[in-house]
Amino acid sequence: MRSLSSTTDDYPHTGATRVVTDGKNVPAAAISTKGADQLSSLLKKNPSLKFFFKQNCQTRPDTLSYNVVGELTGTENPNKFITVGGHLDSWDLAEGAHDDGTGVTGSLEAVRILKVLGYRPKNTIRAVFFMNEENGDKGGIKYAELAAQNKEEHLAAIESDAGGFTPRGFGFTGLSADQLKKLDQWKKLFAPYGSEKLTAGGGGSDIGPLKEKVPGVVLIGLSPDPQRYFDIHHTPNDVFENVNKRELELGSASMASLIYLIDQHGFN
Amino acid sequence: MRSLSSTTDDYPHTGATRVVTDGKNVPAAAISTKGADQLSSLLKKNPSLKFFFKQNCQTRPDTLSYNVVGELTGTENPNKFITVGGHLDSWDLAEGAHDDGTGVTGSLEAVRILKVLGYRPKNTIRAVFFMNEENGDKGGIKYAELAAQNKEEHLAAIESDAGGFTPRGFGFTGLSADQLKKLDQWKKLFAPYGSEKLTAGGGGSDIGPLKEKVPGVVLIGLSPDPQRYFDIHHTPNDVFENVNKRELELGSASMASLIYLIDQHGFN
Repeated sequence: MRSLSSTTDDYPHTGATRVVTDGKNVPAAAISTKGADQLSSLLKKNPSLKFFFKQNCQTRPDTLSYNVVGELTGTENPNKFITVGGHLDSWDLAEGAHDDGTGVTGSLEAVRILKVLGYRPKNTIRAVFFMNEENGDKGGIKYAELAAQNKEEHLAAIESDAGGFTPRGFGFTGLSADQLKKLDQWKKLFAPYGSEKLTAGGGGSDIGPLKEKVPGVVLIGLSPDPQRYFDIHHTPNDVFENVNKRELELGSASMASLIYLIDQHGFN
Repeated sequence: MRSLSSTTDDYPHTGATRVVTDGKNVPAAAISTKGADQLSSLLKKNPSLKFFFKQNCQTRPDTLSYNVVGELTGTENPNKFITVGGHLDSWDLAEGAHDDGTGVTGSLEAVRILKVLGYRPKNTIRAVFFMNEENGDKGGIKYAELAAQNKEEHLAAIESDAGGFTPRGFGFTGLSADQLKKLDQWKKLFAPYGSEKLTAGGGGSDIGPLKEKVPGVVLIGLSPDPQRYFDIHHTPNDVFENVNKRELELGSASMASLIYLIDQHGFN
């Protein structure tokens, strides 16, 4: 298939192919947008063109790895949690800077901001670096399982996994229409960061499994400017040089503010 | 002085030094942020450090050049104008891609969109590539002089001169409080482009002189995402590779929409 890139370059996106169990699977791979353009052009000139394509990728056995979790313990409700996180793994053709290095460092920074301000949260704030998002969400699934097993109450989980670009807002899943309406009063607080679009619908792969395991949790996705993400993610372009420090900082500041507001006021 | 860059690199910003006429002028130049950091560090170690800095820039005589103007002539009011433009000149240490190649191509694209849609405007729509913005706004001043001389009526002038990044909105100068309030009904129309921040205050260097010469004109500045502009403009970083096609297109689409709305509805 033609790479899902939004730019024209030589870097095909990698990604996962989902296999169905009836045995009728077709192997799939992406070729770069430049490669696809050239192939289309050649096929127009010569429809009987033969195309040879060889892949040697394989799925290797799982190995032991871990989520990484840091906490600011709640002063009033230590067993009530607000999670903020991204995922620690990445496709290995680059550094995974935007997918999801910025989610990991951005989440850590959000909690660091609260800590250096001397903020003592009512509820426990957790920064979580989830493992194995790209290969099946096993870190997210395990986190949700442990949450249920340990009878944790989860107020909200925020995920940053759409790149470290200028934040535009947050999407919320699990709020009633009335609760969504009440977010309007927070919008002016996010305007200085440019992240005042607080809308229905949102979350993330890693926090998704919490929905079933700890009912009542509000799932929240950070929404950065989306124009460049598909130029970069899952390709050799996903490197540190393509991260803008100030854009990343605005996302962290937005998440720190959101955590504070939820911790202080909840959604009601 | 330390370069006005928002990043740490070896590329000092160039720019104009304004000279006052009492003769007590101090020559000024920027050194790169990396250079400034190194100089500060050396001065701390050795406060008697001697620093030698040589400049050989000079102001050469003016030469003849031109604004470039294209029009879609108004069907009802050919002598009423809506201008959209950027400036054609740039500092010569790079291509001037964001300052202001994107303003020029983005303005042209806005008018091209209206043309290919077969739109026949009530008023005359002008795409203007202004000359000599960086060196004293002579193109903008001449454009305003000619507007007055030719007894043109100007409804609005839109300038794109803050980079070709994802548009966030427009700033308006010359509207009453009531007129500004009425812009609220347009916001939902710009939301698909992400450019729904319609706020008081805005314009541009090239369109500024119109204010005095053709009173009543509304000056409007396109407001793109500002995070990266000062990493780039007036430095060797201001190259085509740092322009994102889709971000630029969203700005042009936003300007085309704004021109249409003003042409159809004015501000009242």
